Amino acid sequence: MSESVAVIGAGLVGCLAALAFSSKGYNVTLYELRQDPRQDVSSGKSMRSINLAVSDRGIRALKYVNEEMAERILKHVIPMTGRMIHDITGTKQESQVYGLFGESINSIDRLLLNKCLLDELDKCNIKTFFEHKLVDMGNVSTPDSPIFLEFVTKDSKREKREFDFIVGCDGAFSQSRYLMQKTMRMNYSQKYVEQQYIELYIPPASGSSSSDPKYSIDPNHLHIWPRKEFMLIALANSDGSFTSTFFSTWNLIDSIKSSQEFLDFFKKNFPDAYTMIGEAGLKHAYENQPRGALMQVALSPFVSPNNRAILIGDAAHSMVPFYGQGMNCGFEDVHVLMKLIEQNKTIEKAFSKYTDARKEDVDTICRLAYENYQNMSAKVLDPFYLLRKKIDYVFGKYCNGILFPWIPMYTMVSFRGDIRYSDAVRIEKRQSRVLQLLQYVSVGGVAIYAAAKAAQYMDRLRN
Amino acid sequence: MSESVAVIGAGLVGCLAALAFSSKGYNVTLYELRQDPRQDVSSGKSMRSINLAVSDRGIRALKYVNEEMAERILKHVIPMTGRMIHDITGTKQESQVYGLFGESINSIDRLLLNKCLLDELDKCNIKTFFEHKLVDMGNVSTPDSPIFLEFVTKDSKREKREFDFIVGCDGAFSQSRYLMQKTMRMNYSQKYVEQQYIELYIPPASGSSSSDPKYSIDPNHLHIWPRKEFMLIALANSDGSFTSTFFSTWNLIDSIKSSQEFLDFFKKNFPDAYTMIGEAGLKHAYENQPRGALMQVALSPFVSPNNRAILIGDAAHSMVPFYGQGMNCGFEDVHVLMKLIEQNKTIEKAFSKYTDARKEDVDTICRLAYENYQNMSAKVLDPFYLLRKKIDYVFGKYCNGILFPWIPMYTMVSFRGDIRYSDAVRIEKRQSRVLQLLQYVSVGGVAIYAAAKAAQYMDRLRN
Repeated sequence: MSESVAVIGAGLVGCLAALAFSSKGYNVTLYELRQDPRQDVSSGKSMRSINLAVSDRGIRALKYVNEEMAERILKHVIPMTGRMIHDITGTKQESQVYGLFGESINSIDRLLLNKCLLDELDKCNIKTFFEHKLVDMGNVSTPDSPIFLEFVTKDSKREKREFDFIVGCDGAFSQSRYLMQKTMRMNYSQKYVEQQYIELYIPPASGSSSSDPKYSIDPNHLHIWPRKEFMLIALANSDGSFTSTFFSTWNLIDSIKSSQEFLDFFKKNFPDAYTMIGEAGLKHAYENQPRGALMQVALSPFVSPNNRAILIGDAAHSMVPFYGQGMNCGFEDVHVLMKLIEQNKTIEKAFSKYTDARKEDVDTICRLAYENYQNMSAKVLDPFYLLRKKIDYVFGKYCNGILFPWIPMYTMVSFRGDIRYSDAVRIEKRQSRVLQLLQYVSVGGVAIYAAAKAAQYMDRLRN
Repeated sequence: MSESVAVIGAGLVGCLAALAFSSKGYNVTLYELRQDPRQDVSSGKSMRSINLAVSDRGIRALKYVNEEMAERILKHVIPMTGRMIHDITGTKQESQVYGLFGESINSIDRLLLNKCLLDELDKCNIKTFFEHKLVDMGNVSTPDSPIFLEFVTKDSKREKREFDFIVGCDGAFSQSRYLMQKTMRMNYSQKYVEQQYIELYIPPASGSSSSDPKYSIDPNHLHIWPRKEFMLIALANSDGSFTSTFFSTWNLIDSIKSSQEFLDFFKKNFPDAYTMIGEAGLKHAYENQPRGALMQVALSPFVSPNNRAILIGDAAHSMVPFYGQGMNCGFEDVHVLMKLIEQNKTIEKAFSKYTDARKEDVDTICRLAYENYQNMSAKVLDPFYLLRKKIDYVFGKYCNGILFPWIPMYTMVSFRGDIRYSDAVRIEKRQSRVLQLLQYVSVGGVAIYAAAKAAQYMDRLRN
């Protein structure tokens, strides 16, 4: 009989992990704390989630697991080829393209994607148990021993099962991680950033229908209202609506004491969005939508001492959403893990090499995601940042590989899944050094030119 | 009716916290997961613990809560006035005093101290419930609301109780912290150091009796066998025995594959300790004593958003044992908290100011404790370290306050509870700068002297 794998968490990464292990011939069982979202009519409302942007790393992982599945899923996305910057008057929009050659990141509703992946699981006959709460995990540190899991079901029954391997993908507040921590030496940190978020809704434009969606603003851009201490973003849905998210410091949102103040704040700072969301929508969001916290999680090692339990996705590295890489990185975890299994033949050996193979990359993208808040909320208005983007664009598009290789950072992270996150940072550092050198050379050139001109002038004075 | 306070954890800090709140007139209830150690005949064996060293901060806190209690407890301690360094031949011992004026840190058995404190609780009629497992905590983020706790008792009954305030003192693996984290934004990190420890036992010397204890080595020193990558320490018990602890990297202990290899290792590296512990004792320890991990915990804030739950002691800041400050710092937490209650009149206000008042100090001592492994295991043999200690001794004893104030670092941490940990580091930095300056001056002086001598010599040659 083939080895048994339990996947904990039927979110995006858990579903893909289950599909991936199943495609390799393992006997996979998937457990999920919540109800099946396909049967839960209220789940669309209760889920807090920024819309997702699938980019190259995510797409590569989907295709690796199942090319046809990837196609089925990707037909739901809305490509976004750039950022659209909305100014404070509400009248001017400026497009900043993401890629060099029209590449796009791809907006998709988290719930829709989750349902698609669950349907794929059913096609593969993967056993999936919803409303199973993981309450105990044993033998994490026992050499060569299968791991036991204990669940409490919806009707309060206890179920104890043994598995050869456990894959924990149960998100930022992972229960499998908590249970692993109890019996192994896991370095762990969680850190909240000072921003919170509130989700908002921009309805379809008038005259929109399901067969002919109409959008108030361009659907093929990620819309940003950058205001430094706070910002608003919006990503298109396929029905003509946008999911919009308001980010600010906790201090700022706590200082707004009523829905009227919230309305006034929006009217002043996001006049065009104010009109599109509408007063009723803003009031509803202020009064009913929860304020979301943003937590960063880092840990090491990702794997139990007996190489039988592993943590991937947000359970292993939750990051802030500002680089649009949370899910993409989680999908890439699955991809990296599968390639390790291919290379090492056994899951056990693959697990034993996973932390070293992956730690630097996930640390890197967590840091980049954190730093990107500055880019999105403020630097997109900074002339030096924009100049650098233009140089990157020209060098990347026309000079790449002529004098030296040149790939803009955003391209490496979002469109070049063949470049590791950590390598992207190394390449970018080299590129920055080249630019600095060019700067010195050009300043030097100007100085020499000025000196030559001055000498000419002196000569002329003398003669 | 007075406000109700639940203290979670009847370890050392929990007991002192319960006594302290009770002495201020609050209605205190203490809960403990384990059995009453006074009724558990096996607890002496099962508890893993390095012997403790009570020093000034701990003593101040005990005296603040109850002067007579402090006296009752302190009569059990064995003062240690310095370190005794054992060389690798097993024949030479060298004393390095701790204080300037014969001050001592004070060895005491953790279990004995815990039992003493529990007896004090009984004297104050503080309700104490053992074998109560905390399983839920609610209303942590609800403004102005009492907190509810849920326990599971020994006979699997559930008990739900409301309290005005909660004090979590349930150690490094704190359950109250875990439950608080679920409903508030708590930054948290845990990090394991690369060292492990195994506890050993040095029996009383021959002819020792309970009325006339006899020691194999001087009881009034903390004994150290510093071997850089590993070390052995020993602290005296009142019955003539020593509790000894072997520290090494995990790699080293994992490379020792049998009790015979462990014996050979000890014979080679700690020949005198090898004889004192005995082959049987070493074999027993290797085969039966668990390897202890050493974890550092840091978090912020210490207090729930509604200022009704607080974490103190190891639950809030576990540190490695190398500065002998874990318990002292936990006792000082109680002391600081009580003074805040005095100043602010209400517990709520005191809690609201606690994190700012305490965070820098606990971070500092956690760092110092970590760094002190180097001092204990290696630097005690380093001539430059010893020279600095001598300078500190001379300046501290004879020059303090004459030219400038001078207090050695160890003195500030262990014997001067009136100096905050963070201030101690600032003072030490200044002292190091003064020494550097003196070094420059003296090098300059030597240079001038040499130049003058050279000039004389040249004059002599000329004439």
